[in-house]
Amino acid sequence: MKPYLYAIAVVSLVAAYAMAGSSSKTPTPASAQTLRQLEVEFMNAAATQGIAGYMSFYADDAVQLGNGADAQKGKPAISKTMAFLNDKDNHLAWTPAFADISGDLGYTYGTFQFRTRDKDGKSIISYGKYATIWKKQPDGTWKIVLDMGNDSPTPK
Amino acid sequence: MKPYLYAIAVVSLVAAYAMAGSSSKTPTPASAQTLRQLEVEFMNAAATQGIAGYMSFYADDAVQLGNGADAQKGKPAISKTMAFLNDKDNHLAWTPAFADISGDLGYTYGTFQFRTRDKDGKSIISYGKYATIWKKQPDGTWKIVLDMGNDSPTPK
Repeated sequence: MKPYLYAIAVVSLVAAYAMAGSSSKTPTPASAQTLRQLEVEFMNAAATQGIAGYMSFYADDAVQLGNGADAQKGKPAISKTMAFLNDKDNHLAWTPAFADISGDLGYTYGTFQFRTRDKDGKSIISYGKYATIWKKQPDGTWKIVLDMGNDSPTPK
Repeated sequence: MKPYLYAIAVVSLVAAYAMAGSSSKTPTPASAQTLRQLEVEFMNAAATQGIAGYMSFYADDAVQLGNGADAQKGKPAISKTMAFLNDKDNHLAWTPAFADISGDLGYTYGTFQFRTRDKDGKSIISYGKYATIWKKQPDGTWKIVLDMGNDSPTPK
């Protein structure tokens, strides 16, 4: 290696180390964009890993306020109501419309579509809205502490 | 006024002024209890002043995610869907089950009962759950920025 190339390589390594060090000491503060990104990862996890991927975004003490049901508290109870995600005929997709964050709390809300098959195998779609409250956990990750859904009219 | 009474009065005034000054400079930080207290005031305002009292707790840019309806954005739209509160046969009561707060955001959730009369005048009750997201406004007050409800089974 020519001496000036060596110097550039050393400078690059030092710069990379300094940037890595600085990022681990002062992580980027969470923003509304953090929650929008989490929503994308959340949906991908549910689509590719089913209920296990879906539940990995929930805090241990999360509560689910499902339409027509009593409140479900804790991951085991929520996991039971969401087990339908493991059925290959069921497809849940959602679209965040808004995200806000302050301190250790944030929320997203938006619309969802649930696609399944009736007993004759015909595809049926239902529509709804959701709100999700996220909380920063002691380990620094953001998890869902409340998840609520209800029905929407079929879009015209 | 006797001199010692005058002295007591002056001391009282000074003490009152000092307390008022201190409380306006360093207000008690908002806590989950702040939101629980707001929920009580919110329900009282709705019960005694109808829709005007109810809407006074909403932020201008609030969104309402009502069951079976599309999202309603802004106080005029929300006010329209809640106009049923002005009918003396309609009684909406709710019970917060949980409150949390961090930074400028907080939330409450719980259950509600809606009591009305059918066309024959018979009293009917429906049950549901709600989640309310509160946000500290530029003037320091906490207002509702999101309100969502859905159905619950009739309690056994």
